[in-house]
Amino acid sequence: MNIRRFDKVKDAEAVWEILDLVIAGGDTLVFAPDSPKEKMLTYWGADDKFAYVCEIDDQIVGTFYLKANQPDLGSHVANAGYLVHPNQRGKGIAETMCKFSLHEAKNLGFKAMQFNIVISTNEVAVRLWLKCGFEIIGRIPKAFQHKELGLVDAFVMYQWLSSND
Amino acid sequence: MNIRRFDKVKDAEAVWEILDLVIAGGDTLVFAPDSPKEKMLTYWGADDKFAYVCEIDDQIVGTFYLKANQPDLGSHVANAGYLVHPNQRGKGIAETMCKFSLHEAKNLGFKAMQFNIVISTNEVAVRLWLKCGFEIIGRIPKAFQHKELGLVDAFVMYQWLSSND
Repeated sequence: MNIRRFDKVKDAEAVWEILDLVIAGGDTLVFAPDSPKEKMLTYWGADDKFAYVCEIDDQIVGTFYLKANQPDLGSHVANAGYLVHPNQRGKGIAETMCKFSLHEAKNLGFKAMQFNIVISTNEVAVRLWLKCGFEIIGRIPKAFQHKELGLVDAFVMYQWLSSND
Repeated sequence: MNIRRFDKVKDAEAVWEILDLVIAGGDTLVFAPDSPKEKMLTYWGADDKFAYVCEIDDQIVGTFYLKANQPDLGSHVANAGYLVHPNQRGKGIAETMCKFSLHEAKNLGFKAMQFNIVISTNEVAVRLWLKCGFEIIGRIPKAFQHKELGLVDAFVMYQWLSSND
């Protein structure tokens, strides 16, 4: 697998295909299943983010972003979001992207990483983030309108990145 | 006390005075103490927010905003931020604004309210939010760069607004 920065122009179609397929599920990300292409690609490529793509044999199979979770006095904590093409599940792509992003976040000067809304029913993701070193530090009741299950809880997950303080 | 919607033009100076004085402390809000006026007023009056002012004898003594804490499938949870003019502390202004905002959030269709980064060392605020019905549902280690204390923890606080489901 090869991970590189997202190119807003060249990678737009491949990244939109992934975004569109994943949000259509209505079970993992807060974006409405019918979110328009333009809006989502603008979000993914916004100036407040570092966005990346993951390739296998020059084909984009996943994408993620890193950004500051809060402005200014909270900007040492990173936030990230990861998406894997539904046809490419089970290959360890999310884990590879997550581990890369933790390393990259440290390189970018972030001290910690926080996920604000990990859907509690998305057990594969929760297990993976735990495996990658995150802890569940909070549970938000009924935080997410799940397409099939209605209102479900979400987790706040966190890990400190630096071992030197 | 009278609470009404923030007028971007008419109320700009009075609200900026409060914002400027509060963020100068570097101990309650994530915004840098030297944040520029234009940037902060744009943030406060942004289209994704409902902003309000609280008046005593026609003088603006506090301000707060309400907004969706997440887009789309998480947009039923509100977020809010409150500021009281430092000269007006101890009069119950924050409590009045918070209670008003909980009622208003319900009127606007929100189902819950969440604070993402309540500074743990800001004991007056934590106690007040607990009094207003919020629970601490998570503690984020070293989430805030406090002006005097360095990195301190922050709380995620939450309350469900509707008693009918």
